[in-house]
Amino acid sequence: MGSAAQFRRWIRPSARLCNAPFIRATVQVHWRNLYLLSRRSAPRRFHADQEKDMTPRSIIAAGALFAAVATAPAAWASSTYMGALTEAEVLAAQKAWGEALVAISREHEAGGQAKAKALASTVLDKAYGYNLGPVLFKPTLTMAPQTFRTTKDGALAYFVGGDPNYPNDKGFALQGWRSVAIKNAAIQIHGDVATTTGNVMITDKNGNVTTVDKTWAFKKTDDGAIRIVVHHSSLPYTAK
Amino acid sequence: MGSAAQFRRWIRPSARLCNAPFIRATVQVHWRNLYLLSRRSAPRRFHADQEKDMTPRSIIAAGALFAAVATAPAAWASSTYMGALTEAEVLAAQKAWGEALVAISREHEAGGQAKAKALASTVLDKAYGYNLGPVLFKPTLTMAPQTFRTTKDGALAYFVGGDPNYPNDKGFALQGWRSVAIKNAAIQIHGDVATTTGNVMITDKNGNVTTVDKTWAFKKTDDGAIRIVVHHSSLPYTAK
Amino acid sequence: MGSAAQFRRWIRPSARLCNAPFIRATVQVHWRNLYLLSRRSAPRRFHADQEKDMTPRSIIAAGALFAAVATAPAAWASSTYMGALTEAEVLAAQKAWGEALVAISREHEAGGQAKAKALASTVLDKAYGYNLGPVLFKPTLTMAPQTFRTTKDGALAYFVGGDPNYPNDKGFALQGWRSVAIKNAAIQIHGDVATTTGNVMITDKNGNVTTVDKTWAFKKTDDGAIRIVVHHSSLPYTAK
Amino acid sequence: MGSAAQFRRWIRPSARLCNAPFIRATVQVHWRNLYLLSRRSAPRRFHADQEKDMTPRSIIAAGALFAAVATAPAAWASSTYMGALTEAEVLAAQKAWGEALVAISREHEAGGQAKAKALASTVLDKAYGYNLGPVLFKPTLTMAPQTFRTTKDGALAYFVGGDPNYPNDKGFALQGWRSVAIKNAAIQIHGDVATTTGNVMITDKNGNVTTVDKTWAFKKTDDGAIRIVVHHSSLPYTAK
Repeated sequence: MGSAAQFRRWIRPSARLCNAPFIRATVQVHWRNLYLLSRRSAPRRFHADQEKDMTPRSIIAAGALFAAVATAPAAWASSTYMGALTEAEVLAAQKAWGEALVAISREHEAGGQAKAKALASTVLDKAYGYNLGPVLFKPTLTMAPQTFRTTKDGALAYFVGGDPNYPNDKGFALQGWRSVAIKNAAIQIHGDVATTTGNVMITDKNGNVTTVDKTWAFKKTDDGAIRIVVHHSSLPYTAK
Repeated sequence: MGSAAQFRRWIRPSARLCNAPFIRATVQVHWRNLYLLSRRSAPRRFHADQEKDMTPRSIIAAGALFAAVATAPAAWASSTYMGALTEAEVLAAQKAWGEALVAISREHEAGGQAKAKALASTVLDKAYGYNLGPVLFKPTLTMAPQTFRTTKDGALAYFVGGDPNYPNDKGFALQGWRSVAIKNAAIQIHGDVATTTGNVMITDKNGNVTTVDKTWAFKKTDDGAIRIVVHHSSLPYTAK
Repeated sequence: MGSAAQFRRWIRPSARLCNAPFIRATVQVHWRNLYLLSRRSAPRRFHADQEKDMTPRSIIAAGALFAAVATAPAAWASSTYMGALTEAEVLAAQKAWGEALVAISREHEAGGQAKAKALASTVLDKAYGYNLGPVLFKPTLTMAPQTFRTTKDGALAYFVGGDPNYPNDKGFALQGWRSVAIKNAAIQIHGDVATTTGNVMITDKNGNVTTVDKTWAFKKTDDGAIRIVVHHSSLPYTAK
Repeated sequence: MGSAAQFRRWIRPSARLCNAPFIRATVQVHWRNLYLLSRRSAPRRFHADQEKDMTPRSIIAAGALFAAVATAPAAWASSTYMGALTEAEVLAAQKAWGEALVAISREHEAGGQAKAKALASTVLDKAYGYNLGPVLFKPTLTMAPQTFRTTKDGALAYFVGGDPNYPNDKGFALQGWRSVAIKNAAIQIHGDVATTTGNVMITDKNGNVTTVDKTWAFKKTDDGAIRIVVHHSSLPYTAK
């Protein structure tokens, strides 16, 4: 078996998932921006013998959305493995998170909770690091003894509710969100892990804005994806 | 000049600072546990030609406190540079943070704000990564537009107050704290960076307990120290 | 789908490969030590909800070979993702490389070149990082213009020969090797990448010893495996 | 003490060394390219409050040499710590190594062994990671039992000779080198560590070219410098 085929089968199952007709159609019809989720990061380079054709077809398909992520220098070495994060990739991953939140809200309005849940599940599989192990997720509105959502099930319940194991979860992503703005106080890039802290402003369909203090850590994993491995969100402190 | 002397001069200035008579005396008399701050991490190994004597005298001086951190395997290679974090080091760094908070409270009671400020400044120099660049510090009780304390000055104001540039800061570390307990929801070790999320319970002299949701990222820096580079703390959400 | 099933399907395809009847039988009958290859590294911890049962069955099966790799501390946090290398893991990966070389030699003697090639291919899939991208492999005996074997095909040709694209390759692993000893000059652990340099002494069935200067870099990948990503080997310089 | 002053004193001693009148003069008069050594890497960003002026004066002074290294994206976050390597930085560090080798040769011709030794010592202090611990240095022409030069003394002896502890060292850098060309087979970037393997062609004043197989690992250290931590060089294998 060739190493290219092997690579496709082993390393990028999530890319295949995203090509499933249902998901792709949903994305194409409604929110083209969600394409960004299908390959959030600049592609790793596996082009020892294919320098002329560095750009996988799947990336070309993703189109202009990747303009902001493109970081390829003018001159490449003959073959480079890129396992470090760039600031542009971090900013793109943050933006993709906001777009996914809005997409889940819109899917909910268009198709109901089941469809929103399916999309949220895909987002969690692709944009979070639950495939690696526990994610350090402290959502904005959770309470003890279920404050921390280190498993995918816990995160999914928070975003779309409807899980009897998490009875207090109303479905944070179902609140009619329309846009997300992110203002970083600072960013740190530590090799293949990057951390950010700042404010995130989420606007709903009535124009109401919710501001949270949010800290993320992103990890560039072996498949070239950039995944959220830490996510601590909290409402701003207000003096009593 | 020998490389050992060079090492001492360049790489461990903070160790020298900690040996300054004033600081050392303070620590010795009042809170022996603070020794942990002087070398929180297991030492890096620079023993290509000194396999028999891997243990710097400064570590021996630190005494039994290091028992929990000792991670040296039985058989060493002839020479090893250790630039990865262990879980034991992360837990020790968390514990040292709690001890430092209590130490600043006690210093305040014994010597007043100026002495507490001096100790807090030393703690920030040694246990946080402000020497590297911006630290992603979102303290529990800060508000816009001064929510994030990416500089040492901002962190110092939060811990001990008295800075006219941060008029809302009362001095979080001066509230008579007596003990700190940490309950991690999960820990991630990503090479030389580790992240933790969980609850921190802080008890004051009256026995009142404050519980916060806290996310940290620690980085093992080139000098072998383990520094806080991310610190997001928030009061638990309470449904209205 | 549960996250455990997902994990099995996505992240550990190589583990499944190793469970294929043919390969496993080969390993069981002839060289029990090769088990080490099936899980060279201490397992990552995915036990947020299963603290009592941290040890996958596949590890137990590997038996006593893992004694040298076991690095679990006495007390775990509730859930820990371990993405850093330990020195014990590096030493175990080096040892496994030597055992694999001997195993290929013996497979060649017992079953011929085709079987040796099949085993070498498995070793390359599991112990090298060709699944990530180009491996920096400079074998001992290669010459320009085929000095560097950045692809799996090139590495396989070097180890077992018989590839018309690499006409000078005689099959380095087929030379009747019986044992491998490793003497590190030094080791560096940089988070999830570790580097070693030193001498490797390889003894053949006639007792002849070949000594090489060898530099390796190992990477702990997302699946918890430890893979060779750099391998520069050279005969010692001899003054003319 | 302000954190800027502290930073200067603690973290960048090597930068100060490079500003010493003697060294600077040497560099200015003879080989302007050596400036690259004084700050090989793109600067880390410490500009929380100075977004408008991200470019330290020392970088501007280095002039056009940095064109190849400039990787700043168009839009910065308010404050970013950059602890990952870029490919451009790796290529620049390789180029700087070649320039340093030629510079030592020329210094030897112009000023004798003592001056060459002083320059080589500076190069080792700035471009290698001996300040961190053992460097995995296997020079091209060394023999057992002094094959590996894990200490600075051993590396200095190899480059400029004259050390009775290393009687076989003739001074590799003193052989009238005039230019260095580097042809990478592949490059790997693993966060803050990068590895390269390929050919290095070194031309002397008579036009003779020596080709070696060379593997490097570079580490971006906390001070923002990019240092060689692994260096395995060997003459090409020739079939007997």
